[in-house]
Amino acid sequence: MGSTDADPTDANDPLAWARDHAPVLGEFVAADRERRPFDGYTVAVASHLEASTGVFIETLHEAGAAVLFAPSEPESTHGEVVRELDRREGVEAFAREGMTDEEFADAQHSLLEREPDLICDDGCELIAKVHADHPEVARVVVGGCEQTTAGIHRLEAMDDDGVLAFPVYGVNDTPMKRLFDDVHGTGESSLANVMITTNATIAGKTVVVAGYGHCGRGIARKARALGAHTVVTEVDPRKALQAHVDGHRVATMAEAAPEGDLFVTGTGNRDVIREEHVREMADGATLANSGHFDVEIALPDLERMAERTSTPTAGVTRYHLPDGRRIDLLAEGRLVNLTGPYSQGHPIEVMDTTFGAIYAAARDLLDADLAAGLYSVPDRLDRLVAERKLDALGLSVDELTAAQAEYYDDWEHADSSF
Amino acid sequence: MGSTDADPTDANDPLAWARDHAPVLGEFVAADRERRPFDGYTVAVASHLEASTGVFIETLHEAGAAVLFAPSEPESTHGEVVRELDRREGVEAFAREGMTDEEFADAQHSLLEREPDLICDDGCELIAKVHADHPEVARVVVGGCEQTTAGIHRLEAMDDDGVLAFPVYGVNDTPMKRLFDDVHGTGESSLANVMITTNATIAGKTVVVAGYGHCGRGIARKARALGAHTVVTEVDPRKALQAHVDGHRVATMAEAAPEGDLFVTGTGNRDVIREEHVREMADGATLANSGHFDVEIALPDLERMAERTSTPTAGVTRYHLPDGRRIDLLAEGRLVNLTGPYSQGHPIEVMDTTFGAIYAAARDLLDADLAAGLYSVPDRLDRLVAERKLDALGLSVDELTAAQAEYYDDWEHADSSF
Amino acid sequence: MGSTDADPTDANDPLAWARDHAPVLGEFVAADRERRPFDGYTVAVASHLEASTGVFIETLHEAGAAVLFAPSEPESTHGEVVRELDRREGVEAFAREGMTDEEFADAQHSLLEREPDLICDDGCELIAKVHADHPEVARVVVGGCEQTTAGIHRLEAMDDDGVLAFPVYGVNDTPMKRLFDDVHGTGESSLANVMITTNATIAGKTVVVAGYGHCGRGIARKARALGAHTVVTEVDPRKALQAHVDGHRVATMAEAAPEGDLFVTGTGNRDVIREEHVREMADGATLANSGHFDVEIALPDLERMAERTSTPTAGVTRYHLPDGRRIDLLAEGRLVNLTGPYSQGHPIEVMDTTFGAIYAAARDLLDADLAAGLYSVPDRLDRLVAERKLDALGLSVDELTAAQAEYYDDWEHADSSF
Amino acid sequence: MGSTDADPTDANDPLAWARDHAPVLGEFVAADRERRPFDGYTVAVASHLEASTGVFIETLHEAGAAVLFAPSEPESTHGEVVRELDRREGVEAFAREGMTDEEFADAQHSLLEREPDLICDDGCELIAKVHADHPEVARVVVGGCEQTTAGIHRLEAMDDDGVLAFPVYGVNDTPMKRLFDDVHGTGESSLANVMITTNATIAGKTVVVAGYGHCGRGIARKARALGAHTVVTEVDPRKALQAHVDGHRVATMAEAAPEGDLFVTGTGNRDVIREEHVREMADGATLANSGHFDVEIALPDLERMAERTSTPTAGVTRYHLPDGRRIDLLAEGRLVNLTGPYSQGHPIEVMDTTFGAIYAAARDLLDADLAAGLYSVPDRLDRLVAERKLDALGLSVDELTAAQAEYYDDWEHADSSF
Repeated sequence: MGSTDADPTDANDPLAWARDHAPVLGEFVAADRERRPFDGYTVAVASHLEASTGVFIETLHEAGAAVLFAPSEPESTHGEVVRELDRREGVEAFAREGMTDEEFADAQHSLLEREPDLICDDGCELIAKVHADHPEVARVVVGGCEQTTAGIHRLEAMDDDGVLAFPVYGVNDTPMKRLFDDVHGTGESSLANVMITTNATIAGKTVVVAGYGHCGRGIARKARALGAHTVVTEVDPRKALQAHVDGHRVATMAEAAPEGDLFVTGTGNRDVIREEHVREMADGATLANSGHFDVEIALPDLERMAERTSTPTAGVTRYHLPDGRRIDLLAEGRLVNLTGPYSQGHPIEVMDTTFGAIYAAARDLLDADLAAGLYSVPDRLDRLVAERKLDALGLSVDELTAAQAEYYDDWEHADSSF
Repeated sequence: MGSTDADPTDANDPLAWARDHAPVLGEFVAADRERRPFDGYTVAVASHLEASTGVFIETLHEAGAAVLFAPSEPESTHGEVVRELDRREGVEAFAREGMTDEEFADAQHSLLEREPDLICDDGCELIAKVHADHPEVARVVVGGCEQTTAGIHRLEAMDDDGVLAFPVYGVNDTPMKRLFDDVHGTGESSLANVMITTNATIAGKTVVVAGYGHCGRGIARKARALGAHTVVTEVDPRKALQAHVDGHRVATMAEAAPEGDLFVTGTGNRDVIREEHVREMADGATLANSGHFDVEIALPDLERMAERTSTPTAGVTRYHLPDGRRIDLLAEGRLVNLTGPYSQGHPIEVMDTTFGAIYAAARDLLDADLAAGLYSVPDRLDRLVAERKLDALGLSVDELTAAQAEYYDDWEHADSSF
Repeated sequence: MGSTDADPTDANDPLAWARDHAPVLGEFVAADRERRPFDGYTVAVASHLEASTGVFIETLHEAGAAVLFAPSEPESTHGEVVRELDRREGVEAFAREGMTDEEFADAQHSLLEREPDLICDDGCELIAKVHADHPEVARVVVGGCEQTTAGIHRLEAMDDDGVLAFPVYGVNDTPMKRLFDDVHGTGESSLANVMITTNATIAGKTVVVAGYGHCGRGIARKARALGAHTVVTEVDPRKALQAHVDGHRVATMAEAAPEGDLFVTGTGNRDVIREEHVREMADGATLANSGHFDVEIALPDLERMAERTSTPTAGVTRYHLPDGRRIDLLAEGRLVNLTGPYSQGHPIEVMDTTFGAIYAAARDLLDADLAAGLYSVPDRLDRLVAERKLDALGLSVDELTAAQAEYYDDWEHADSSF
Repeated sequence: MGSTDADPTDANDPLAWARDHAPVLGEFVAADRERRPFDGYTVAVASHLEASTGVFIETLHEAGAAVLFAPSEPESTHGEVVRELDRREGVEAFAREGMTDEEFADAQHSLLEREPDLICDDGCELIAKVHADHPEVARVVVGGCEQTTAGIHRLEAMDDDGVLAFPVYGVNDTPMKRLFDDVHGTGESSLANVMITTNATIAGKTVVVAGYGHCGRGIARKARALGAHTVVTEVDPRKALQAHVDGHRVATMAEAAPEGDLFVTGTGNRDVIREEHVREMADGATLANSGHFDVEIALPDLERMAERTSTPTAGVTRYHLPDGRRIDLLAEGRLVNLTGPYSQGHPIEVMDTTFGAIYAAARDLLDADLAAGLYSVPDRLDRLVAERKLDALGLSVDELTAAQAEYYDDWEHADSSF
């Protein structure tokens, strides 16, 4: 056996691990390496500059694109990823570790001055700037993609005001993203981070999950599967009832507060756990958020109620209440699956599907000939991502026979009753 | 303890068991018994005349309606239910057991001549007739509800042709119906009927489920939960992938055919299991359908392939292939959960939710002031049914605080990312 | 396709369905048909005379035995099974449908006068009689097998008193029986019968399971898997804790009484649900027993508490309490999976494993050269049944390499820490 | 709110987090703080000196014992735990971080010279030394407890040779330890560490679990619950069959090798995954061990087969095979749940139950008056630990009524058939 040091394929390649676990992008590379659909196009990418983003940039590049990339946030840049990409011809970094806010903004402007044809955006950073400060560039942009909720909100406002100068696909709400990212990705990674951080098992714990949307459903389902006693709180009676027949106890947060060992929020709203609930919790109750920023658990309430805080173990902030009870907050109330001390970031597979959807959307824009505006990603592109993933997994689906296709079209039986 | 014989409340009341297990309708009775929202209105009901339909009719009647009812199919009428209802003042039967086809049609016409204000229909039987043969009645009908896929198809055709004379709610595709009826109702009742009919356990069996829509998902999920080795076949790559991450093996029917112990179809299409698949099946493979009429399993193929058939146990048709293999078909390929020899019909709870949705839709039509046409049931009515069910279960949901409502409206966080 | 009527292989063969679903016995037939290990031996079988027993008798016969059989209970005899077996040379019935108690006893005595070499007993019926009334026969019996708890109790008493004249294997407590019969067989068939009888789903129901032994564990596990909210009551703190970490709520019956929708007993003890509990139950609570005779639910308490009873649907006895509450008892408190109106008896697969264990035990007695007394079934015989079942399923296990076998023997790592 | 710094109760107390999550020991403290059953006794403790051990030592001390403690292994000592304990009167450390092997042995001898009355041992370290080198001390020792498999093996050898000078409880094989430690503790912590280390989800993965003992069963059950496609390999046909009806696919390792995404060993034997299997694995297959030391995966085979190794991410050793395939080994083949880069050690709850059993056993030895020899822990002590845990959880069990106790004793129904 040779030595470990001289490893050309992965020891020195900061993208190797991510590339190995990104089969959807790998399938697109295999499909498009010869065809080079992006040949002659310059694609701008703004994102957190970590390994999975690097694989996305590499995929665009192998499909013919010149790629310009900048961070979507100044602090999350992995220097070795930037350096690895930047030394490739046809890929150019407008990024490095440790940028100041000013340098960060300058880099985005410098990138835009290079007149990209397509913009794969995160938070509408580049698209907003190109409209505001580079209108002549905006006029020649072929199209854009946006992967975040916040970005889509800004785009909706721009679209309503009629200022969008090119078509943009809102790659955030596709079924494929929901399924992988929210139910399975968030569900499993949230619990894994809770388990490692608290050094505890889930079996037998009373786990209160706030919200039964995709994220909450994933967390509650996986927790119950591991043997937890799950309680779900909701504001929507239909989701509450779904939780009930899925085997979770339905309660208000006020009812659940005294019973939970672990509370996980995933509602997308603020103050889901607040003073009135904390007052009723048992000593040692543990709080985590898998939903939205750090607003789901009302931190100001905890700060106000506590006599003092401590850090009993890494990743845990303990709030000592005057009556002696301790409330343990994980990851400072931020996304426990992404920001806990042991978190490795969003699972690569999840990002693979999301970036696969962006890739398919970006490629589609080249030929789509859409008017300016914000668009949902067409079903056929979402299906394409699913097909790539199935190919990577080596799985096959049936095809409708001619008789079945006719039967289906005739009455739409499949759609209407199943 | 008194005697069993003189039982005024249920031994002699054919609606008692159904009424006890129909809490949603019970909540509507409790809510509307005083208000009598249907006071002064005559409601026509066409449906299978069994106990759960009786409870629905009773609910309308207690809410003030005069009710006229007729069968939606000549053979499914339970005489004791008809007699029990018919002896109430303000309820009138156009039905009895053992009607001929002619009597059946006559009864519907007689009913329509009584000029109902509202029509709760099944298969578009009454609505089609009223338009075709009683146009003067159609002009005064306030509105209608339709609960079946086939009926909605006919209504869509009428709507497209611009002939609908009044508004109709398509009460078939609501989330509440999907959840209770398809995932849980069909899922559990299909497996229970298979288990009883074959006198077998599900644990350890290889169960091939065709289709991963609501019905297929319910069957596959419940079978896996009981310990089956599940295989899912699909034509849609996204549903296939969902099955894959839900822990089911994904395969084509050709791949699955040699491996399955039990095959259950739930696609809504025809010929899902056909000669090419049966040829590969193991001796003793068992086939059941929970989907669509009796077309999902290609019976003509089985008939043609078999040397002869036998009935090894009640509810099982055994096809003897020339090479000695035996293929066992349950319930003649009809819906195994509804037509098997031990089937008690659709679970009452399921019908309770469906009839609850019809009740809410019918009541809404009185004030809705809609133009003629076919309408989806508004979300608020579906939520109302969920709320009634939660009330019946004694479960509560949270309410948004003012700050949360504002936060939600401001950015639509909840909707877009969860 | 030929006609259905002239079916030599199964339409006229009342053992066909059972034989098809008894792979373990089938494997023994395949293995021993040539060897004929029972050649020259006469085997007496007492059991419920239904199809699966018929397949067991057939298996003995094909392995060379002359078989004499009698019912273990006068009322459970299936005439067509008796007739089918009786017409084979070397098989002789001491049974027919509709025997009086006297005829039943006479038949057993007549059988014993034929001096069987081996006795496969049920409830110690034949073994007790042979010792009491045919001592000269007892002296020449090679050995016996007993499959029931009650029978083993009688045998233990006989063994303690030193009166047993030959060796007997207690084939009741083997791991294979526990696994198939109790956890999966009783678990699934109990719920299937409840679902069909009450025409209800399990999802969302609060199911209270009394006892967390093999039966209770099976019921609770399967109910939770289907989406129930499970509550387990126990008297043993370790089983209670196991239930807790398996995700069931642990409570006393007094605590659980007001919350349950469905109560299923499986403790093996009496009066597990009694007046003090019924007093606290909600209107409509449903009671079923999967455990022991009809004593787990205290029927005298229900009788005393109720004003009257009624039968709202087949298989349900409704107790009307003076305050208006209704308590619904399934299958008269007898084993709901065996005696409900839709029950098809113990699943054939389950009987296949149990009869397989009896077969292996009986065959072993021929060469075992054991002293008189009651014996546990040796592990190697239980493993043999498992191997036959694996063979039938086409599944393989690994074999220890020489190095692994040595490692294992050296330290017994596998046994002690895993 | 006060500051975070001045935290007398936990910020400066390295036992705080563990103590909060050790309710069984907490219950023993509460029960024995007044009674002080260990008053006048000196207890020697050898163990890994981490926080949960500290809580155990504290529990003994609060129950009256003078405690002397030493490491059971030189490298696993947490200095802050040692210092925290050592400054208590009546507790004395024979340990510090960074001991040489010689210092480590010296420390154990120094401890034994202090003539402890009881020895709570780990790996038979102290008990072997006291017999070999301090025979005069061995003669006055009241008794001992041993918590590991390896230690029990040594004790069995000593017992067989008749050299044991005092009674020892083998606290390793109790049901409570098996349940918490193996099924739930190892099951969940193994998967959590795999998920974090590989930044992947379990849903949809083909997970091959070698061994279906308590550990393997825990891993396979939890993986399947999260949505994995599980395959189980076994050498015991009964365990294989149990896996089959629990819903796992049963295969030989040779059959499973080409299909697995993730392999987890838990057999307690060596070379479970070896060259013949690795040769068939897919590129990217991931190997982890949750069983026995680092021998279950044949590392020498991997070393020999690979051209070179690399470290694509922390905790992963990648073996590059000559044909280009990459095999990823987690945690160097050591216990993935204990030695992975993100592992926090055995879950505290698990150690709580184990140390609770040792505490109960040690306390029992004071009055048990046993002859010298190795003993199983009596059932009543295991039940006691379960009761303490139930008390801590606030859960209650039923008590047998007099009639039930009589019924049970009369026929032993509960024991024999459930």
